[in-house]
Amino acid sequence: MHAGDVAITEVGPRDGLQNTGSFMPTAAKKAWISAEAAAGVRSIEVCSFVPAKLIPQFVDAEEVLAHANSVTGLTPVVLVPNVKGCERALAAGARRVMVPISVSEAHSMSNVRKTTAQAIEDFARMTDLVRAQAKAQRAQLVGACSTAFGCSLQGAVAEADVVRVALALRAAGADAISLADTVGYANPEQVKRLFRAVRKAIGENFPIEAHFHNTRGLGLANALAAYEVGVRHFDSTLGGLGGCPFAPGASGNVVTEDLVFMFESMGVNTGIDLGKLIAVRQTAFAALPEAELYGHIAKAGLPKGFQPRLHAA
Amino acid sequence: MHAGDVAITEVGPRDGLQNTGSFMPTAAKKAWISAEAAAGVRSIEVCSFVPAKLIPQFVDAEEVLAHANSVTGLTPVVLVPNVKGCERALAAGARRVMVPISVSEAHSMSNVRKTTAQAIEDFARMTDLVRAQAKAQRAQLVGACSTAFGCSLQGAVAEADVVRVALALRAAGADAISLADTVGYANPEQVKRLFRAVRKAIGENFPIEAHFHNTRGLGLANALAAYEVGVRHFDSTLGGLGGCPFAPGASGNVVTEDLVFMFESMGVNTGIDLGKLIAVRQTAFAALPEAELYGHIAKAGLPKGFQPRLHAA
Repeated sequence: MHAGDVAITEVGPRDGLQNTGSFMPTAAKKAWISAEAAAGVRSIEVCSFVPAKLIPQFVDAEEVLAHANSVTGLTPVVLVPNVKGCERALAAGARRVMVPISVSEAHSMSNVRKTTAQAIEDFARMTDLVRAQAKAQRAQLVGACSTAFGCSLQGAVAEADVVRVALALRAAGADAISLADTVGYANPEQVKRLFRAVRKAIGENFPIEAHFHNTRGLGLANALAAYEVGVRHFDSTLGGLGGCPFAPGASGNVVTEDLVFMFESMGVNTGIDLGKLIAVRQTAFAALPEAELYGHIAKAGLPKGFQPRLHAA
Repeated sequence: MHAGDVAITEVGPRDGLQNTGSFMPTAAKKAWISAEAAAGVRSIEVCSFVPAKLIPQFVDAEEVLAHANSVTGLTPVVLVPNVKGCERALAAGARRVMVPISVSEAHSMSNVRKTTAQAIEDFARMTDLVRAQAKAQRAQLVGACSTAFGCSLQGAVAEADVVRVALALRAAGADAISLADTVGYANPEQVKRLFRAVRKAIGENFPIEAHFHNTRGLGLANALAAYEVGVRHFDSTLGGLGGCPFAPGASGNVVTEDLVFMFESMGVNTGIDLGKLIAVRQTAFAALPEAELYGHIAKAGLPKGFQPRLHAA
């Protein structure tokens, strides 16, 4: 990856599906993951190791992860809400584990019934689990600061709190930090300010990622703002599927196709074939007929004479 | 207006309506204009002086402009496609006249059956008309470079051509220049590059405006990019209504409510009351039941604890 390139993690099979009404058949999930990987998406968050009684959608987490692990060139990511989930994920062969920690105490209590400090302690226990793995198989842990840009329960979230949580996660042994706009409250000025502050605290070269929702329409503008202050890793979902079941009103991640279009049109390489990616919408969502799909580029079509940057790197 | 503030021109009654299937009753247009002005919108493009046989929607242009001219604190803008339209507009009391000049020759021929050079000559004739007015009543002319970021007929549009047209319009006597992404092809990098190039050519302090469509989802990101290089005047439409009837696939301007939300959340003053503005959607579009409305903030609601910058200037 060149300095100007971006990495995009498709989080649809996890963030996109956790809030849908109906179960997506395991075969459809596998086909979706394979099709996106074939379009050049090298990182996909494929499932959540959360108890099936809480989110039945992820009852097949082990099987989906096993499939994703078999796809050449793909690094699957899994989400875990707690230590037990992390144990399951590692046992299932997870190579990259996303652990959300709510900076908002109100959201943390509502989401996992723990204070933010307790969630950080749990994260430290997960880093112990990972350190106990054989070095060659050691999984990476991403500490995700959720509600980093505001919370629909608490309202504003202090930037000092986000910096403190990010520092604690790094100190506990995180391999990367993610800042997540869980409920779609972020604005571009805030994005620049917060990413600058966190990067200054954890180190400019420490891996950092951005997870934006498009709830209030600013998803791409926020991604642009983050790019401008040096962020090169973004989450998004095909068709803008998704939301947070514990945060009322939070629906719709940044649309992967539109995000890829924005970057490619700017001359920023994503490594993704936009035409193939758009075609995946039909494959993936045939199995979810009631899902509300978003996204502009799939409807409007590519500009005449559009030159993607595909494989320029 | 402070240096960091932005001015927003609502162009819905013109750009938004020219492509709708049904006629919006004159009384509804007047009510829409009054309601937006009451929400703090100080500039509204209210009609087009185009022959009614071409676009029947604007058969009531004189009456709508007369109403808009009577609204306290509002500067109405009108669009004219040619010299005859300009004569009609000035006779009707127009104070600010928007004249689109297609930088794309293909679009110019398709739209007004003139080459770009011929359209610039027409623009010069319009400046003669304005100069013949009594100085106190003199209307302002905005030279709008349409298809400045690409054209669905021609494809790419050379940046040197845009600079050349902008310079010619300024030399002919334009009071301001607008760069319009008529068909939604612009990307943030291009926006920065082109506005920088044009401002360098016409002068950093010469009034310049941005007109973005959201056809491919990048409208707000493009507005952010333009803001970052010093642009402080933006067009948009309530509910994202609109498009260009002569440019296939071009539907949906930037959504005024979402644009105001973006700027206000960044701490940039728009002078517009966002709550009142969102309420105008219902008033305005009751008269257009079949229109497709866009926009996120009206559906998602304001963030908890959101502090608008209203009247901070």
